[in-house]
Amino acid sequence: MDRVDTKVFPAETLREFCARVFMYFGVPESEAAQAAEVLAAADLRGIDSHGVARMSSYVEQLSEGLINPKPQIKLLRSTTSTATVDGDNGLGLVVGPRANQMAIDMAEKAGSGWVCVMNTNHYGIAGYYVLKAAAQDMIGWAMTNTSPIVAPLWGMERMLGTNPIAVAFPGKNEPAIVIDMATCTAAYGKIEMALRKGEKIPEGWAIDNRGHITTDPADVIAGGALLPLGSDRERGGHKGYGLAVMVDLLSGALSGANWGPFAPSFAVRQAFPTRSVGKGIGHFFGAMRIDGFIDADAFKSQVDDYIRVFRAAKPAPGTGGPLIPGDPEREAELTRRDKGVPLILPVIEELQGISKRTGVPFD
Amino acid sequence: MDRVDTKVFPAETLREFCARVFMYFGVPESEAAQAAEVLAAADLRGIDSHGVARMSSYVEQLSEGLINPKPQIKLLRSTTSTATVDGDNGLGLVVGPRANQMAIDMAEKAGSGWVCVMNTNHYGIAGYYVLKAAAQDMIGWAMTNTSPIVAPLWGMERMLGTNPIAVAFPGKNEPAIVIDMATCTAAYGKIEMALRKGEKIPEGWAIDNRGHITTDPADVIAGGALLPLGSDRERGGHKGYGLAVMVDLLSGALSGANWGPFAPSFAVRQAFPTRSVGKGIGHFFGAMRIDGFIDADAFKSQVDDYIRVFRAAKPAPGTGGPLIPGDPEREAELTRRDKGVPLILPVIEELQGISKRTGVPFD
Repeated sequence: MDRVDTKVFPAETLREFCARVFMYFGVPESEAAQAAEVLAAADLRGIDSHGVARMSSYVEQLSEGLINPKPQIKLLRSTTSTATVDGDNGLGLVVGPRANQMAIDMAEKAGSGWVCVMNTNHYGIAGYYVLKAAAQDMIGWAMTNTSPIVAPLWGMERMLGTNPIAVAFPGKNEPAIVIDMATCTAAYGKIEMALRKGEKIPEGWAIDNRGHITTDPADVIAGGALLPLGSDRERGGHKGYGLAVMVDLLSGALSGANWGPFAPSFAVRQAFPTRSVGKGIGHFFGAMRIDGFIDADAFKSQVDDYIRVFRAAKPAPGTGGPLIPGDPEREAELTRRDKGVPLILPVIEELQGISKRTGVPFD
Repeated sequence: MDRVDTKVFPAETLREFCARVFMYFGVPESEAAQAAEVLAAADLRGIDSHGVARMSSYVEQLSEGLINPKPQIKLLRSTTSTATVDGDNGLGLVVGPRANQMAIDMAEKAGSGWVCVMNTNHYGIAGYYVLKAAAQDMIGWAMTNTSPIVAPLWGMERMLGTNPIAVAFPGKNEPAIVIDMATCTAAYGKIEMALRKGEKIPEGWAIDNRGHITTDPADVIAGGALLPLGSDRERGGHKGYGLAVMVDLLSGALSGANWGPFAPSFAVRQAFPTRSVGKGIGHFFGAMRIDGFIDADAFKSQVDDYIRVFRAAKPAPGTGGPLIPGDPEREAELTRRDKGVPLILPVIEELQGISKRTGVPFD
């Protein structure tokens, strides 16, 4: 954990604050509660960059009329197990949960359900969605494309988002195995943190604005780009790049949203894309009934067994041994449900600013 | 391309040879032809480790009765869009194409089709399968687990296979975008090649048998392990590990096959797993009709546009600019269809040995 000044807030306080702020901007009550729930899930699970720290961006976009607070979500096309939804430029935090639920409902009937979404906005943490499916004895899938910040391997410009992939597999007595990962090497938030602390970043995270590998976080902020998972050709950077393209095509091109360098940016201050090739950004959700393949109870017992086998693995020197995907988030949630969510001062100040502007109390 | 002594063979000659060898071991004619086609696809596409270079392992397993030459493939369970198949311990090269076709047929009716397979064996290159779906205006998916050679992040033992993921998206006038990648940093074949040439391997590819990072390929052969994509925690090794687990659970646990350290090995000389948690290894196939989401022609035009935008990207210094996933394999195929497939001497000698043993001519 990075040592910076923080103050701790109960998750419930943050959730309530966010819901009321969304309502201030015209989001209907139940949808505001839903949006706040997704953000709270990020804060609880320790993914600080995707929780209340993003409220100022949402507020900015809502107040400038760039996001529709009352979207009429429309089904554009469907088959027995697939569908495309127009999010009517609503909050991704509202449109995402609706589309994800459609995938789950479809899977209930057809064995699997796959829903892509166009004309939507950032949807919070991908892990939130896949846990919903896992709770129904399904394998959940969630992807989204995002505004460009990652260079393709051998490219020197920001052309791809951090394009996360999440998949969850429920256990029986053990918790779900939750894979939830951006397809770049390191998060942009880590670059900002290094800059704030005056530290170098490891080789392999990023390039500067002339395409050279850099260890100076300021180079990245000044028009450089993150690198795809694998970093360079020798260590498999073409694989991370391929995964980012996969997420982009499934979320963006398949739904009719923008893709690649044309995905609109989250912050209103950032440059507007040079072309429009669709509407908004895109998401992709999937749900597969486990009992569409195998007895659900038998599978969940195997997941338990899997977890125990990997927990019992011999540790590499200087480590505590392999974790199970999802462990860090689960541990954060256990602590934070009990002790609250630590926020850094700049985030607290932003929330105080929102409070002043909207009249929604924050303390 | 590594400079080693090679001799060039027409792909057709190799395909014919393999088909006749499979028939010698009792594989029915049409299935032998199918198996040989998958191997030839690997040789044509330049994935030399997965083509005829593997014949000796298939022959070894068939001759020792470890693979069933005449499998009765059984449907174990199905819904409208999902199914599980028992491969009856057949060649993965025979079982895989059948299950993949089931996924495509299912998608034809239900919009998408998802088929997992247990009790099967190595299926060749994942890219072969997804191109079949792409040719039907579908997005194809293929995964398989394999015998353990990769360490989980922070582990020191071989517990996961190279567990590849392939996904293909058809273009209109441009070729399909084909992502086909193992979830480890580098292929085992590259370790063997470095050893043969007396070269070091890059840091980040592998650990020795005590869990330390090594640059000596001999350490890896002597009981070390490959590292997951991302290599270490700092550069996202937990992500490659998570992807390997995802493939393992979808292919192995979901089908009722073995998973993780218990996946049986491909070569009969290698150690037998300590436990059995299912039958054989497992595959996972998927197909999604593009027009289940969006107009297929419109999507394929977007894929063309995507390809052109990324080809036109500014190159990083010292590179020719970003490739499109699938480019290297397509280029190899163009050349090799015309000029033939180069084989290295050890592979030629193995094939000559098989020829001698079976009486199938090879020259």
